[in-house]
Amino acid sequence: MKLTLADAYARDAIDPLARFRDRFHLPQGVIYLDGNSLGALPAATTDRMADAVSRQWGDGLIRSWNRERWIDAPTRIGARIASLIGAAAGEVIVADSTSVNLAKLLGAALAARPGRRIILSEPGNFPTDLYIAQGMAGAELRIVERDQIEAAIDDDVAVLMLTHVHYKTAAVHDMAALTAAAQAKGALTLWDLSHSVGAIPVDLGAANADIAVGCGYKYLNGGPGAPAFLYVAKRHQQSLANPLSGWMGHAAPFEFTDSYAPADGMKRWLTGTPPILALAALEVGVDLVAQAGLAAIETKRVALTQFLIDCVADRCPQLTLVSPSDPARRGSHVSFRSDNAWPLNAALIARGVVGDFRAPDILRLGVTPLYLGFADIWRAVDHLADLIDSGEWDAPEFHARTDVT
Amino acid sequence: MKLTLADAYARDAIDPLARFRDRFHLPQGVIYLDGNSLGALPAATTDRMADAVSRQWGDGLIRSWNRERWIDAPTRIGARIASLIGAAAGEVIVADSTSVNLAKLLGAALAARPGRRIILSEPGNFPTDLYIAQGMAGAELRIVERDQIEAAIDDDVAVLMLTHVHYKTAAVHDMAALTAAAQAKGALTLWDLSHSVGAIPVDLGAANADIAVGCGYKYLNGGPGAPAFLYVAKRHQQSLANPLSGWMGHAAPFEFTDSYAPADGMKRWLTGTPPILALAALEVGVDLVAQAGLAAIETKRVALTQFLIDCVADRCPQLTLVSPSDPARRGSHVSFRSDNAWPLNAALIARGVVGDFRAPDILRLGVTPLYLGFADIWRAVDHLADLIDSGEWDAPEFHARTDVT
Repeated sequence: MKLTLADAYARDAIDPLARFRDRFHLPQGVIYLDGNSLGALPAATTDRMADAVSRQWGDGLIRSWNRERWIDAPTRIGARIASLIGAAAGEVIVADSTSVNLAKLLGAALAARPGRRIILSEPGNFPTDLYIAQGMAGAELRIVERDQIEAAIDDDVAVLMLTHVHYKTAAVHDMAALTAAAQAKGALTLWDLSHSVGAIPVDLGAANADIAVGCGYKYLNGGPGAPAFLYVAKRHQQSLANPLSGWMGHAAPFEFTDSYAPADGMKRWLTGTPPILALAALEVGVDLVAQAGLAAIETKRVALTQFLIDCVADRCPQLTLVSPSDPARRGSHVSFRSDNAWPLNAALIARGVVGDFRAPDILRLGVTPLYLGFADIWRAVDHLADLIDSGEWDAPEFHARTDVT
Repeated sequence: MKLTLADAYARDAIDPLARFRDRFHLPQGVIYLDGNSLGALPAATTDRMADAVSRQWGDGLIRSWNRERWIDAPTRIGARIASLIGAAAGEVIVADSTSVNLAKLLGAALAARPGRRIILSEPGNFPTDLYIAQGMAGAELRIVERDQIEAAIDDDVAVLMLTHVHYKTAAVHDMAALTAAAQAKGALTLWDLSHSVGAIPVDLGAANADIAVGCGYKYLNGGPGAPAFLYVAKRHQQSLANPLSGWMGHAAPFEFTDSYAPADGMKRWLTGTPPILALAALEVGVDLVAQAGLAAIETKRVALTQFLIDCVADRCPQLTLVSPSDPARRGSHVSFRSDNAWPLNAALIARGVVGDFRAPDILRLGVTPLYLGFADIWRAVDHLADLIDSGEWDAPEFHARTDVT
């Protein structure tokens, strides 16, 4: 028996996170299934940003570095992110972009493993991870298929670099097992948590993780191009050095000395001046995730992604599920393969159902428990089924490839 | 005969830039002499930011990368900054922080000069420039006094790295002469324009400059921690490679291939996802400088900094001018030496005259033609003279060093 809209309503009625939808600004007529590319706007961000601009910057001017504790924003927000990923407060700081943070940590890890020059990863890892690794002077990127990673860790490997939740398929790596395997061979493991943080359970402490990075603009709802974060386990904090040794990572930046001396703890991972306005937006998003609670998010993620998979199986058998069927092994997005993924996605967007296309043939739908309900999912699949059954998806305008993202 | 408030009013009355003051939000009771650390808030930024947050992000969501041309913001704003520094539109892009951009260009320059490992600079250059150079693997920072720089350029020097306007003294380097001297020895010159852009005339083209970076939050009024920019002369664009080779600098980022291939032109200098909200604020600030016009800014900068120097000479002979007396050889801030620089600055701030202290003994006053008038300067010096003459500066609370910036 196929799932109905009534089934969706019944689930929404008992959803403890349903009330969080009002904490977001979502446009009328849009079902937003792209929170894994850019999270929605928290309603509180509008006022928070106006305050940061008009009062803190406009009225406070330079004095706000002290009075508003702008100077502490990277560590303060880092501590909140830490609580979402099983890290201690002093193990996470917010800085730069995910890409720049990857470069910092790869550089530090390579320097900490002299004589080893291999960065090990997998094909199809998120491009910026692979590209940044390819740019590391004196290092070599080795990529092996997912099922051969563990066997490929040898004495030449300085860093195993993996994305915890795959950006296309949503497949989840076994963080603890791979970290342990790398440690057994003397290598560090760098986890990219961009599609994990705020989306699925992460426990860096329990996994005995070494180093990690992650993104602020997906499930943390920090805004387009939000600042990213990085994590360094306490035990590595004294021995790893930030190769992008800028003044904000100095032990005493306002003494303006000529010689670099790294700050203790995570502050050494700062490079330039923190982006205060962007940090204000990120802080609201991080706080919302913390308020919703990771346990409630996880329960709903499992149910909501499964509901999507079941609805698509009911109504759109033409689409092939490429995400893992075991909810413990997938993230918070669900991907389907179709030769018509591009026009299907374009036709959905024209109806206000916003997912995204990932080359060459993936329709990727992000399922964010904070602001999506079961009825949203049912309606999105109803549109998809109608587009397929009617042939409407095949209109010429949906085949045009003008957009860049 | 000493300068009077009437003299100041007379100058303000004929100031063609006086009308630009209303384009800024400035708090009542504050004379802001710290635009060289953090520029004031342009009045239009409030609405522009609200639009970027609520409409572009909130309503447009992921679609705004295309519809609002977020994707073009780094090159679009870069082109406007180019027009302020004598560069061609395709020679400047906005990205990351000044510090991160320094690391990119130093890394690229070192790779382009194999066999040379020296980065040449001067003591007392802005700390982040020296610190980033100290972090460059395989390179060595050599620092020589300002008057020995030219003689120190030898065949081991890969890059001459200098800040055009000194952050403490405001002394200006001869960009064309030093660039030519370095080029004669086969070295590249990297100019840090952080205290120059929007403040004093810069003509990278006429100076035959190689590479440069600069900051968005000082005279460009882009907001706290605003994105920075970098410049690469057309002739070097194919041969220099960004070592922070992230996905946004890829020739085709949305093809998500495993191998990095740099974009043509300046786009290869992008690394992570551009910070869209921060870019929206920066764009307003850059536009305002362009609207005011560089010629008008320069005329007023010369007159206003001279007026400040003359007022201080009249009223505060205890203070020693450390900035060059020749206006063509100084930037848009003026610095004075005093053993009491810290308490004097603290006492000024308590009266709403916001300048800043730079260790160990510098009182630094930023003179921004866009929103300061001659009467502001006169009144600021009047406060300073009164604090000194009354001994009020010496109160215990002004000696406390609790602030970090």
